[in-house]
Amino acid sequence: MFALTILGNNSAIPAFDRNPTAQVLQTMDESFLIDCGEGTQMQLSRYKIKRSRINHIFISHLHGDHYFGLIGLLTSMSLLNRNQPLHIHAPAPLQELINLQLDFASTQLCFPLHFHALQDEGTIVSNDKITITCFKVQHRIDCWGFLFKEKKNARKLDPERAKIFEIPAAFYDKLQQGHDYVNKKGTIVPNEEVTTAGPIPKSYAYCADTIYDVSLAEKVKGVDLLFHETTYLKDLHQRAADRYHSTTIQAGAIAKKAGVKKLLIGHFSSKYESLDEFLSETKEVFENTELALQGCCYMV
Amino acid sequence: MFALTILGNNSAIPAFDRNPTAQVLQTMDESFLIDCGEGTQMQLSRYKIKRSRINHIFISHLHGDHYFGLIGLLTSMSLLNRNQPLHIHAPAPLQELINLQLDFASTQLCFPLHFHALQDEGTIVSNDKITITCFKVQHRIDCWGFLFKEKKNARKLDPERAKIFEIPAAFYDKLQQGHDYVNKKGTIVPNEEVTTAGPIPKSYAYCADTIYDVSLAEKVKGVDLLFHETTYLKDLHQRAADRYHSTTIQAGAIAKKAGVKKLLIGHFSSKYESLDEFLSETKEVFENTELALQGCCYMV
Repeated sequence: MFALTILGNNSAIPAFDRNPTAQVLQTMDESFLIDCGEGTQMQLSRYKIKRSRINHIFISHLHGDHYFGLIGLLTSMSLLNRNQPLHIHAPAPLQELINLQLDFASTQLCFPLHFHALQDEGTIVSNDKITITCFKVQHRIDCWGFLFKEKKNARKLDPERAKIFEIPAAFYDKLQQGHDYVNKKGTIVPNEEVTTAGPIPKSYAYCADTIYDVSLAEKVKGVDLLFHETTYLKDLHQRAADRYHSTTIQAGAIAKKAGVKKLLIGHFSSKYESLDEFLSETKEVFENTELALQGCCYMV
Repeated sequence: MFALTILGNNSAIPAFDRNPTAQVLQTMDESFLIDCGEGTQMQLSRYKIKRSRINHIFISHLHGDHYFGLIGLLTSMSLLNRNQPLHIHAPAPLQELINLQLDFASTQLCFPLHFHALQDEGTIVSNDKITITCFKVQHRIDCWGFLFKEKKNARKLDPERAKIFEIPAAFYDKLQQGHDYVNKKGTIVPNEEVTTAGPIPKSYAYCADTIYDVSLAEKVKGVDLLFHETTYLKDLHQRAADRYHSTTIQAGAIAKKAGVKKLLIGHFSSKYESLDEFLSETKEVFENTELALQGCCYMV
């Protein structure tokens, strides 16, 4: 299960109390920070997101509205005496910037910082709970999307039935992994007799800033929740293309083609005060759409 | 006349809705931005400060809480199609950072940016209305204070009396500058007969982050308004010294020794939620003290 909280939903210029891009994807175990526009550390405080649960930060590209808040967050984490390691996944040049800024301030972070430069599409994080992959998106500069996929969940054990079949507790882990049990007499107890399927693994795809690109649909195929940018309403498709951004109906088209369960739209241009039309236009193409609103938490 | 608006009054870590350091000093003609912590561009919007009036930005030192908001402000100014030149007065390494960040974003500012590295104490801006000087302060890294001094104001002309003495209007400018008038007969009309003194020129000194340093008093002697940091209450004088910061009563002592008219205190540590004691402790030493509060405007 994922819970996605929006910290910033605006494009380049902050406006109408909408902050630049940042999102937190929370699992039962940890939180993943996706992009980190200016003011992200204040937004984390505002929405009571624990910084100590964040072990991985993903930066899609080096336009300022996606990373200018990172160095402030890192130095604050250090001032708050963080000691657990932090992993940053980002385009390579960011490492030089971080080092220079720490250097000029004559500051050393008091926690280990591991920088992972994004270079090839594929897996960047994998543990027993989740796989995170990165994929290229088409923007004015080197830019990446991120796909978060829960691993197959453990099967749910019925301990009463396990007792009936006299299965020792030491074998319960194996049952949850789907193994059958063979007792001393050589009789097989099929796994399905004592377990039921675990929760279906969930997936979330974040497409960052992108021009309308139908090939994206393949990369985010069938995800439970897709975040796709809608910087402009549909009438400004030419401006969107010129600036390597997308419109409402383009985001809807990607969601439809990819067969996703739900679409979340954001990265709104500061030229729009009201967001109503973003929702209605996108819904023309893909009904199950929601606006990414700051402070709101979307369950996956 | 100056109007000083506080955009951020906290030290390193933003807390209790207190932002990192930034201030705007407004004159009748333009606005000067002093330091630019993360979130400054949002604070400018919140308090309706016009960015177009800002032609000079002063950065005291390269600790992030004093400049992490600068690059976001610059890129937003560019996205908003600013065209008039902007001057930045700051420690030299900042220029490299700005250039790198623009470079990585493949962005060119659409207005001329003039970078002035702070190197020697003395005048950094001078026009017919104001003189701005910089002075060194003692902090953990290279750090500067700024002194804003109005130039002598024009004398106030009484046009009725000028007519009585048959002084031609073409000479009024000279009268306002303090010159006597000599009529065709060679008779001297003393300036004081037709003018009165203009408003007394005002001065504001910003001391940035500093350890308790009595030699500062000489540099800010007699100013109308002094901003001096009080990161800690008086009991933490050892921590203050260790970190090159000051306490309440130390700020009060500087204000007293310098014979300033009024003292403004800020740069509060995030360990304090309430600021009441900052005010009461400082007032023990220097009565005419105020807390620097966000969104408040202090007239000089």
